Amino acid sequence: MAPDSYKSPNPPVSESNQTGLWHILSLKETFCVFQVAIPDVYQTAHDADILVFVLPHKFIRGACEPLKGKIREGAIGISLVKGFDIGPDGGVALISDVIHESLGIPMCVLMGANLAPEVAAGNFCETTIGCEDPQLGRLLKTLIETDYFRVTVVKDVKTVELCGALKNIVACGAGFVDGLQLGDNTKAAVIRIGLVEMMSYAETFFPGACKETFFESCGVADLITTCYGGRNRRIAEAFVKTKKSIQDLEKEMLNGMKSQGPQTAEEVYVLLKSKSMLEKFPLFVAIHRICIGELPPEELIRCLQDHPAHHHSHL
Amino acid sequence: MAPDSYKSPNPPVSESNQTGLWHILSLKETFCVFQVAIPDVYQTAHDADILVFVLPHKFIRGACEPLKGKIREGAIGISLVKGFDIGPDGGVALISDVIHESLGIPMCVLMGANLAPEVAAGNFCETTIGCEDPQLGRLLKTLIETDYFRVTVVKDVKTVELCGALKNIVACGAGFVDGLQLGDNTKAAVIRIGLVEMMSYAETFFPGACKETFFESCGVADLITTCYGGRNRRIAEAFVKTKKSIQDLEKEMLNGMKSQGPQTAEEVYVLLKSKSMLEKFPLFVAIHRICIGELPPEELIRCLQDHPAHHHSHL
Repeated sequence: MAPDSYKSPNPPVSESNQTGLWHILSLKETFCVFQVAIPDVYQTAHDADILVFVLPHKFIRGACEPLKGKIREGAIGISLVKGFDIGPDGGVALISDVIHESLGIPMCVLMGANLAPEVAAGNFCETTIGCEDPQLGRLLKTLIETDYFRVTVVKDVKTVELCGALKNIVACGAGFVDGLQLGDNTKAAVIRIGLVEMMSYAETFFPGACKETFFESCGVADLITTCYGGRNRRIAEAFVKTKKSIQDLEKEMLNGMKSQGPQTAEEVYVLLKSKSMLEKFPLFVAIHRICIGELPPEELIRCLQDHPAHHHSHL
Repeated sequence: MAPDSYKSPNPPVSESNQTGLWHILSLKETFCVFQVAIPDVYQTAHDADILVFVLPHKFIRGACEPLKGKIREGAIGISLVKGFDIGPDGGVALISDVIHESLGIPMCVLMGANLAPEVAAGNFCETTIGCEDPQLGRLLKTLIETDYFRVTVVKDVKTVELCGALKNIVACGAGFVDGLQLGDNTKAAVIRIGLVEMMSYAETFFPGACKETFFESCGVADLITTCYGGRNRRIAEAFVKTKKSIQDLEKEMLNGMKSQGPQTAEEVYVLLKSKSMLEKFPLFVAIHRICIGELPPEELIRCLQDHPAHHHSHL
């Protein structure tokens, strides 16, 4: 058996494409036509049946603008974007809702343990699609799934999207633990408590969120991958070890690209503060405060020690 | 701030003590007296209020034998033992049930993301106690908890114990992925699908198991720690890379100590086969077959590709 015979012979094209706007996820191309790295949004997307959104979340409003009212009838969108949108009024919105409001198309989301270089290498992974329409869900699964990219479809779209955004905050906490060299037990505690806050966030702001969704690839699996292999973890580790700012590290380590965890932590912080809910999410809040230099990274441990997750013994 | 000021100044004594039978978990010693590394079980334990069981699971019947009928009235036991007992009739039992039947004492369990060297180093971690009696649960929390060893108590004793045993099987799968150098996405898929099979096992054999328990330290956190830092993962990785047998690797890498994952995988396999349920737990079965050389490690990927977890889209 050749060493690579258990890898995909035809990996899907999925290298992250931060300068272009669109993205081929599947090689099947049986239904829709995508283009990669064509910078003109209208030219790329006006006649597409399915629009796949993959870009840093702060560019999403600008990317939608040229497409308003110019999309093929019956088109749908699927968002792989992680993060929240801060509206002009300071409110926090899901990216899929921003796209839906801007373009008027039905939206699905795709999130999972899918570090792009590993997907591109053809290594096996899973993903989760959140889609409310069963027929469309089945179609997307058929289009996107390969032997090496397995898809589960769930109806709980909001939770799938929340997981994709919030896990990047937790990954910063995991990176701080790595920087402090505290080992696997402490890191697992951060990941678990992070997951508890993710579930609590979903319950608080999107009542009806389904706990089962956190057992899908978009939940626990993506959280693990991101906390071990992702760039947010890497930046946060370097933040502790070098004592440089997040911004400087992004320039040095990500060629100027933004790590999304610190941004998302800030967005969540702003929302929680406006709703007087900072005490309910002490880990998210501590991670934000560490990112902006308001707390030393060592204080993460005090946050874990005092966390309400240890008070609510089920007795 | 001194580099170690965020570590425990007085770490609990918790280095794994595989030759002795008892174990000090807390330094508080306000309630009960334990001895470390006294090989005479009767002398060590006959007048203890709380008996803490920490030894490889196959020695548990022999360790209980000298204590039968000789334990202080009102004593209780807490088991940290991971694995299952195979009875003389081939049936599979929980270790806490074996101790309970042998000694007639109420049993609790303690499981969590607690790699022993890291606990001994005083790094922060969490754990879970499964205890049916609320009053006793509160007492154990008070006794065992320190600032650096946080305890959550849950009533769902069986699931806590199951998690501790089954996670070692999944860790072998994670180690195979590491040996095959397939990266974080594939490893997260193994961990997630392993968690799904753990939940399914609990539901099948212990109806009433609570899904919430899998979000405690004994569940997802211990699974993560074990799949990244544990010795089962390490042995399984070496198994793929060196092509030596598990037994030879245990001699070389663990000073002859047994890695519990392959044993537990066999115990589970025997049970599933006897109940004609092999198809319901394809990951557990594949891991067992790889451990005994019946399947090449690369076949783990086929198991993941075909896993029923991808078929049950919630539509």
